[in-house]
Amino acid sequence: MDIAVNWQETEQHLTELRQLVNERLDRLTDLPEGCPDRLKSAMRYSLLAPGKRFRPLLVLLAAEACGADPEEAIAPACAIEMIHCYSLIHDDLPAMDDDDLRRGQPTCHRQFDEATAILAGDALLTLAFEVLAKHVEPPDRAIRCCRVLAEAAGPCHLVGGQADDIQAPTLAPSLELLESIHRRKTGALIECALSLGAIIGDAGPEVLNGLQEYGRAIGLAFQITDDLLDLLGDEKLVGKRLQKDKKQNKLTFPAMLGVDRSREKIERLIEAACRALEPLPIERRHLVALALNLKSRTH
Amino acid sequence: MDIAVNWQETEQHLTELRQLVNERLDRLTDLPEGCPDRLKSAMRYSLLAPGKRFRPLLVLLAAEACGADPEEAIAPACAIEMIHCYSLIHDDLPAMDDDDLRRGQPTCHRQFDEATAILAGDALLTLAFEVLAKHVEPPDRAIRCCRVLAEAAGPCHLVGGQADDIQAPTLAPSLELLESIHRRKTGALIECALSLGAIIGDAGPEVLNGLQEYGRAIGLAFQITDDLLDLLGDEKLVGKRLQKDKKQNKLTFPAMLGVDRSREKIERLIEAACRALEPLPIERRHLVALALNLKSRTH
Repeated sequence: MDIAVNWQETEQHLTELRQLVNERLDRLTDLPEGCPDRLKSAMRYSLLAPGKRFRPLLVLLAAEACGADPEEAIAPACAIEMIHCYSLIHDDLPAMDDDDLRRGQPTCHRQFDEATAILAGDALLTLAFEVLAKHVEPPDRAIRCCRVLAEAAGPCHLVGGQADDIQAPTLAPSLELLESIHRRKTGALIECALSLGAIIGDAGPEVLNGLQEYGRAIGLAFQITDDLLDLLGDEKLVGKRLQKDKKQNKLTFPAMLGVDRSREKIERLIEAACRALEPLPIERRHLVALALNLKSRTH
Repeated sequence: MDIAVNWQETEQHLTELRQLVNERLDRLTDLPEGCPDRLKSAMRYSLLAPGKRFRPLLVLLAAEACGADPEEAIAPACAIEMIHCYSLIHDDLPAMDDDDLRRGQPTCHRQFDEATAILAGDALLTLAFEVLAKHVEPPDRAIRCCRVLAEAAGPCHLVGGQADDIQAPTLAPSLELLESIHRRKTGALIECALSLGAIIGDAGPEVLNGLQEYGRAIGLAFQITDDLLDLLGDEKLVGKRLQKDKKQNKLTFPAMLGVDRSREKIERLIEAACRALEPLPIERRHLVALALNLKSRTH
């Protein structure tokens, strides 16, 4: 590593950015008349619950690394969190993963009802594109953001990954299938966060590709730590029911590779992520620190 | 009326446009690897089922009325049909209206399963924005399309209207509430169809406003005919279960006003729709014919 990384400094910066994201999510969901109270409450209940804001932070860090101001990137940062939140609400539904706890509180359909949860998810998904269309300037940048977000959230990535994840217990288990599910279900949106930041920062193709490569590597590393947390984590810290993968016979990295080889894989992915940034003419300090910190993720 | 309207000619034109829409919807959902087969089948099962294509036809007619070629408007036409179709799939779910028949065939969750139906809806909603971002040029026109579609489909309109529609049996019935639900649940997307056509046709504010006023009037007229069809229609022609509104104690126009006054209201709305177009410097022949034909709607 040819740069000095200071996790305390990065952590402090992330706290400030997280606050910016939370404030803006609050404002963007302060919806006018026309939106029924119960629907608005459900959207805000799930969206404003304490979350890591991993994806929006990546948008902001990538934009900053390319020299943009976080304020320029806050709309795509909020849009991607809305997409992530909608996908959690729908994934938690009884017909899907049937979860009762999320971000340390009852899931949306438990707190409200199933119809409201379906509609709150639909509303957040739609609002994400309204936010991009309304708050990103100029139009060609806004439309590029719409395109990468719609692709990452669409049937060939986020939704397709979730569909295969549900079907996975009935399919022949393989590392290839597992990686393909994770690449689409979690990886695509994380890679998209880096693309959004790069678009806002007017990055050229080399920087865009490098940031995407970083995104793919930390996306998979993030998911493997998720699998490990499900197996070994503390339910209070993680804020959702654990050991569900095993009960639901889900395909996971610890199940396929064992815990030790899963941890080795995380190490290798983090190294690859940092390496992808090395040749780029950007300020990569915080992105490197964030990747290195994934190893010690507890929630 | 100061123009000659020939329904046979308009009908012939609509048949050609409908074919264009159907062909393009087919092509746009011929999704690449990454989209699981079952998800793709469910999306196409619902989207390609025989539908009136009312909203996409309005996009194309409005664009044509402003002098654009239908080919320029086909992407927004398909996008709005995807949004409409997703909303039907989710509305039909057991937790919502719990319907088993739609467009003359089993509803998506009956034909596949609930999880697949939720995901197929999510995928179509997302794909609509991808289609706009990819296939509308130039970027400022594409982003205007994204914005009006996201607003019309969002929590203050389509989703909000559906949320209130579900809650309606528990609320105090009033004509005001009923109109507010319909304006958001059905009207907003129909008005949006006209806006999309106007945007593609580079319409100025006067034409845009006039087309939107036409859209609001026929949107409400369309919904009242829907209520009447639920009460008096032929299930085979309509392609969905009828007399459900009464069973579910839904707020409807015939229930509030009676059949005769509902029919009078439709007449008045159609007149208002035609009047809104009169002063506009556009070729309004087909739009007028379409509005006048709403009276004899049987499906």
